[in-house]
Amino acid sequence: MTKVRDSALEYAHSNKARFLDELKTFAAIPSVSTDPAYKSDIQKAASWAAARLEALGMKKVQIFPTAGHPVVYGETMEAGKDAPVVLFYGHYDVQPAEPLDLWESPAFEPTQRGENLYARGVSDMKGQILAGLFAIESIQKTSQLPCNLKFIFEGEEEIGSPNLAPFIADHKELLASDIVLNLDSGIIDKDFPSITCALRGLAYFEIRVSGAAGDLHSGMYGGAVHNPAQVLCELIAGMHNAQGKITLPGYYDSVRPLTAEDRADIARLPVDEEKYLKITGAPALYGEAGYTSAERIGARPTLEVNGLLSGFTGEGSKTVLPAKAMAKISMRLVPDQDPSEVHQQLLKYMELNAPPTVRWEVEQMAGGFPSIVDRDTPGVQELSKAFEMVWGIKPGFKREGGSVPVVAQMQSILGKASILAGFGLPDDNLHAPNEKLHLPTWYRGIDVVVHFLFNLQK
Amino acid sequence: MTKVRDSALEYAHSNKARFLDELKTFAAIPSVSTDPAYKSDIQKAASWAAARLEALGMKKVQIFPTAGHPVVYGETMEAGKDAPVVLFYGHYDVQPAEPLDLWESPAFEPTQRGENLYARGVSDMKGQILAGLFAIESIQKTSQLPCNLKFIFEGEEEIGSPNLAPFIADHKELLASDIVLNLDSGIIDKDFPSITCALRGLAYFEIRVSGAAGDLHSGMYGGAVHNPAQVLCELIAGMHNAQGKITLPGYYDSVRPLTAEDRADIARLPVDEEKYLKITGAPALYGEAGYTSAERIGARPTLEVNGLLSGFTGEGSKTVLPAKAMAKISMRLVPDQDPSEVHQQLLKYMELNAPPTVRWEVEQMAGGFPSIVDRDTPGVQELSKAFEMVWGIKPGFKREGGSVPVVAQMQSILGKASILAGFGLPDDNLHAPNEKLHLPTWYRGIDVVVHFLFNLQK
Repeated sequence: MTKVRDSALEYAHSNKARFLDELKTFAAIPSVSTDPAYKSDIQKAASWAAARLEALGMKKVQIFPTAGHPVVYGETMEAGKDAPVVLFYGHYDVQPAEPLDLWESPAFEPTQRGENLYARGVSDMKGQILAGLFAIESIQKTSQLPCNLKFIFEGEEEIGSPNLAPFIADHKELLASDIVLNLDSGIIDKDFPSITCALRGLAYFEIRVSGAAGDLHSGMYGGAVHNPAQVLCELIAGMHNAQGKITLPGYYDSVRPLTAEDRADIARLPVDEEKYLKITGAPALYGEAGYTSAERIGARPTLEVNGLLSGFTGEGSKTVLPAKAMAKISMRLVPDQDPSEVHQQLLKYMELNAPPTVRWEVEQMAGGFPSIVDRDTPGVQELSKAFEMVWGIKPGFKREGGSVPVVAQMQSILGKASILAGFGLPDDNLHAPNEKLHLPTWYRGIDVVVHFLFNLQK
Repeated sequence: MTKVRDSALEYAHSNKARFLDELKTFAAIPSVSTDPAYKSDIQKAASWAAARLEALGMKKVQIFPTAGHPVVYGETMEAGKDAPVVLFYGHYDVQPAEPLDLWESPAFEPTQRGENLYARGVSDMKGQILAGLFAIESIQKTSQLPCNLKFIFEGEEEIGSPNLAPFIADHKELLASDIVLNLDSGIIDKDFPSITCALRGLAYFEIRVSGAAGDLHSGMYGGAVHNPAQVLCELIAGMHNAQGKITLPGYYDSVRPLTAEDRADIARLPVDEEKYLKITGAPALYGEAGYTSAERIGARPTLEVNGLLSGFTGEGSKTVLPAKAMAKISMRLVPDQDPSEVHQQLLKYMELNAPPTVRWEVEQMAGGFPSIVDRDTPGVQELSKAFEMVWGIKPGFKREGGSVPVVAQMQSILGKASILAGFGLPDDNLHAPNEKLHLPTWYRGIDVVVHFLFNLQK
């Protein structure tokens, strides 16, 4: 066993230069999903990925058209019926590169500087897709695959995966698997590997409060009519109490309490208050009493104001008593909260607290379930061991504060929690100019996937 | 005495048709002060007003240039040293007429329909200027003026009178008078005349709250950083208590309490809660506990949110944790509040209430003193009697919720409180399409000024 691993790792190490060249070729395709101008590049990236799967000897390789950008599929089931099926999820689309003038080297001309490769998409997530494929190649060329593999690469992750859920629902059997691995994530520090074991869900609303039929002169009517901007502020102010807890009725009822083990896992992560202060530039931290910043972000639900608009917001002064006021409010949810439950809680809060001097409405703009993967499942355990084999330390179990719709979608349609990992770093400038990939970490990542696949062998 | 009045009134009544023609001529000049395209029309309106004063035999008629639009002056001091000097204030500029397509007849082609004359500026305030001049003409043509008269007509009232204060300060002696009459107002109802005895002052601020150094991803940092939009809402919510009182420290210290007589005067006005509900379209009224709507608007200070802006306000959803939030807040002030005192109170409130998790700043955008004229001064008493002589009922003493900077300026520079009256009606569509003047009320107004000037005779 050790011998086949060593051969595979040796192959991976001796092919670093070619792997890097392939990544450069893939990253040079400007597969920006949000901009119709790049439609042919999206096609080109899909074709490149499909060709790469075929080069690995994958079967049933196909580019499925969707209402938007295509889905690429491929599989190999030659490890036998008893071997587990691992479904690799990936996305071949990238964020726009603008503002272009802030890039030190052109966004779609991958350029190495020091230990990093700079280009749009190298970390998010073309490099991660290839880390998986190169690990597989390294095993194939030196022994035999210990697992059956399936691949689903979409081209719309950066625009919210609008056509992925229907595709998954229509291809449940094709996608059936034992383990879903989504490498669209990263580790917490180059010296501290981590597995993302939870994502927060989202419930996003627009609240609109209106008072008078039209804008009024604040001199002629101010004082006798309730100002909807004031009412909206009062409603928002009431949504948190002095301990930073959210006051929507029943909001915490479905929240799974943190166990001592959960808290110990979070406490192991190399993040502290000073780091958050430095990253955010905020004058002081804030949050729900009784929890650390890492817990507040990863393991506790929140309610944020994402936008506020009312009345006159230009330069100077205009003495208007606005007829309406709007707030965008979103909640990040944790297991076992449900976005539609939260919707009802918000409506209840408004019914209880909005005064009769205004009219109001609440519109749900987006929603997604939180997700969590059990630390004790074989997939997570074997990936954890793989990380430890490469880094020499047990990886952290990280809870991500954000939401990845595709993870919740796959979980709800396929019934499988994704294992979320990857070999990006927090300073990779995702969605920003000068996106980069730390190559030594990436190469270690290929080794991790090699170990992971062997670890899964029964 | 009665005989000279009757002759003057008879003259006024028999010249109605010509008075109307003159008003049409004056209102046909598009003297829009805010738009440089109308500069020559502003000049034309100033020349027309100066010529009209000369036609009345006024002396020292002069068009004074200013840094902006000119000031027209004229006087007659032939009533003798013992007769009072009445300074007539007026403005010959008008609001823009846009949106033009909402006018039923062209804005600068004065058109009579029924009892109303429609054109921009007929009510605000070319008709009011001419009501004064026609009353004077009616006396001149039938007897002798009982008062000395001075006139100051500016061309920048609709843009905030930016060059009037320096002009007044430079011409204090020229403008010295016993009574200042400003007819740039109206009566509360065509069957219920009124004198405007008070105006509210204004203190306008922009409050800016900032948290993190830049916008953050609400998933990655939400829960651990104080959201400045939430903080701003909390600060604004705290500015009123449950009784609708303003909580800025010391806010009511300088507020002159209402006397029983004040309240009786306000209660006499033909406005009730139902009327406010109908005009505003609000689902319910609101305000400081213990006061009627008319008191809340005219005689009590307020604090309004005029604008709110933070984060993402476009269509759809964006999960941003905003770096900053802004509110425009203004207070309407009553005697004896002082805008700079209120500025200090707001700063104190922010110091006491803003949490250390954010940075904040307050910028004062505008400020003006409240003004009030004593009911018992001879000018107000004689104007009140004049209204009663024409309408048959004692006029109401109305407190205007808005602010007229020129009134406060003249009071502070010349030391004279203006008597604010006029013959417009609340539905005259000031600053809106289809501005109109109710002609029967306007003709009665000319009679009121005739009586007023005779009443002042010692």
